[in-house]
Amino acid sequence: MIPATAKQWRVQERPINRSFRETDLRLVEEPLKPVGANEVMLRACYFAFDPAQKGWMENAANYVAPINVGDVMRSRGIGRVVQSNSSKLKVGDLVRGDLFMADYFTLPMDGPTPANVEKVDTTVPLLTNLSILSNTGIAAYFGLMDVGRPTAGDTVVISGAAGATGSLAGQIAKINGCRVIGIAGGAAKCAWIAELGFDHAIDYTTGDIAKRLRDVCPNGINVFFDNVGGGILDIALAQIAPRARVVLCGGISRYSSTVTTGPLNYFNLIYNHGRMEGFLTRDYLPQWPEAKRRLSTWIKEGRIKSREDVQEGFENLPRTFMRLFEGKNIGKQILRVSDPELA
Amino acid sequence: MIPATAKQWRVQERPINRSFRETDLRLVEEPLKPVGANEVMLRACYFAFDPAQKGWMENAANYVAPINVGDVMRSRGIGRVVQSNSSKLKVGDLVRGDLFMADYFTLPMDGPTPANVEKVDTTVPLLTNLSILSNTGIAAYFGLMDVGRPTAGDTVVISGAAGATGSLAGQIAKINGCRVIGIAGGAAKCAWIAELGFDHAIDYTTGDIAKRLRDVCPNGINVFFDNVGGGILDIALAQIAPRARVVLCGGISRYSSTVTTGPLNYFNLIYNHGRMEGFLTRDYLPQWPEAKRRLSTWIKEGRIKSREDVQEGFENLPRTFMRLFEGKNIGKQILRVSDPELA
Repeated sequence: MIPATAKQWRVQERPINRSFRETDLRLVEEPLKPVGANEVMLRACYFAFDPAQKGWMENAANYVAPINVGDVMRSRGIGRVVQSNSSKLKVGDLVRGDLFMADYFTLPMDGPTPANVEKVDTTVPLLTNLSILSNTGIAAYFGLMDVGRPTAGDTVVISGAAGATGSLAGQIAKINGCRVIGIAGGAAKCAWIAELGFDHAIDYTTGDIAKRLRDVCPNGINVFFDNVGGGILDIALAQIAPRARVVLCGGISRYSSTVTTGPLNYFNLIYNHGRMEGFLTRDYLPQWPEAKRRLSTWIKEGRIKSREDVQEGFENLPRTFMRLFEGKNIGKQILRVSDPELA
Repeated sequence: MIPATAKQWRVQERPINRSFRETDLRLVEEPLKPVGANEVMLRACYFAFDPAQKGWMENAANYVAPINVGDVMRSRGIGRVVQSNSSKLKVGDLVRGDLFMADYFTLPMDGPTPANVEKVDTTVPLLTNLSILSNTGIAAYFGLMDVGRPTAGDTVVISGAAGATGSLAGQIAKINGCRVIGIAGGAAKCAWIAELGFDHAIDYTTGDIAKRLRDVCPNGINVFFDNVGGGILDIALAQIAPRARVVLCGGISRYSSTVTTGPLNYFNLIYNHGRMEGFLTRDYLPQWPEAKRRLSTWIKEGRIKSREDVQEGFENLPRTFMRLFEGKNIGKQILRVSDPELA
């Protein structure tokens, strides 16, 4: 039963030069647009959150279409097709991809800007479609493999190691034969990454990170996979090994504060011939199928695991997004808004 | 006529977390050590200065042997052999390499740590042995060619463009078919780099660097060759093109002040898949002969030019070194302490 109105989270204010606030998104209810030619209507089942979405709201990220104040905010997620005027999808199909933050919404399947959605992979647990087999997994895969270029025996250090991307990058580094050290906040997160097979977990909320890092990396850091930025990046730069690779995957510390300084120790890249390199997952678009194939194989072989932090209820969307910046999530931050079996 | 005593500049104080001061070096006169087995005695003709020597005095550079307070300071230069107990060099030979800051000094030519000196290349102007064919030229060559990896049509921006390394890196970029923009301080320096064939010269002492850089780099910067660091590096990072390479060659701004911030805009490396990489010339030791051969050919073909800022007198050594940090030199900073023809 499709309702007459849709609930939508629209951008109320851009979080520029400050932290995200729950009031930056505003809940509105509007008549549901009828399904046009070559369009489908979806009911949202799950939304998956990424710190980069704050950048989308700021319009700071040149790699996504602009989002204006007043627009319905976008999010990756899983939805079920409830009406279809497209030959590409039929009613009942469960799809993953770029959705709108609304309980019901229509998507164009054709024309100049067709929606970026595809049927979910049903050979793996459903929510891995939003973690390992999503942008998150793709970021971990190419960030580590192509930018980090680990070789067996390397010491790989990962910040934000209990996050969706970090936890996966660490497991892929283990498959590559590396020693892996994760930095995460709190005992629960550290216990989880130990369970995933990380060689060491450093809890950044207690004691001297630099000293503990030196203790477990006596020969320096070969690959530093950074999801955090700020002070952690500086500490790692001070301990890089010759020819180290610093992978810039993200910077959660930048998202939750006003940034006033860059990495002071970047000069250590000179003394060690270090390389610091950023990337976006879209840079690897032609290689995504191969990456997904490998990731999917590793899931089925039990060599990589994901964990999802699933919150409930469409009304809790801004609060759930906020958890990322509060460091509350272990694994992928997800919001369940309807039952995928019943949608 | 060899004197009984030698004049030497010894390290008096380490310039840590502050600018270099002339009083960090102290002039002493001591009895000249007699020449031992497998040793030679040199009379210094020229010293060539490099900002990195401040790092040597700080003991911050792990790529040179430690220099302690009280030690005779080291410098690259040209000297003439005035006594020899080594079969490798004979009296009258003019050599280039790692010398001591003394008017006369002995060097071991054998044993566990033989001196790093070789006969000068006499097929090129003498002082190019201390600029293009020295560490300076090697830095420009590998920094640009191996780290920067320019391709024809690239827009290459060089900071410290009138310096010994920067001016050469720009000319090598021109040989590679690139558009080259140099940033330098003052009209005289800008006129000189224009004369060398740079497409644009930006005088950082006047007006808005960021705006002028945008004007001449409408498609962004493909290669940024940085000798300066600080604010200039940040301005360049804000304007990198997709897949840009940021070559960390040096950071003169770091040498002359207390550093309190790193490059704030490093995050732009993510959005553009940029790479920021440092290097040391010793990383390329096996490839030096090939680089010197090419550089020497380009000198003879008139395709690369160097300029030397030659000061006079052994007593003026600290003052001459200081010129680097004051931005007074155009081209390689050199001190002439004796006539190479008469030494």
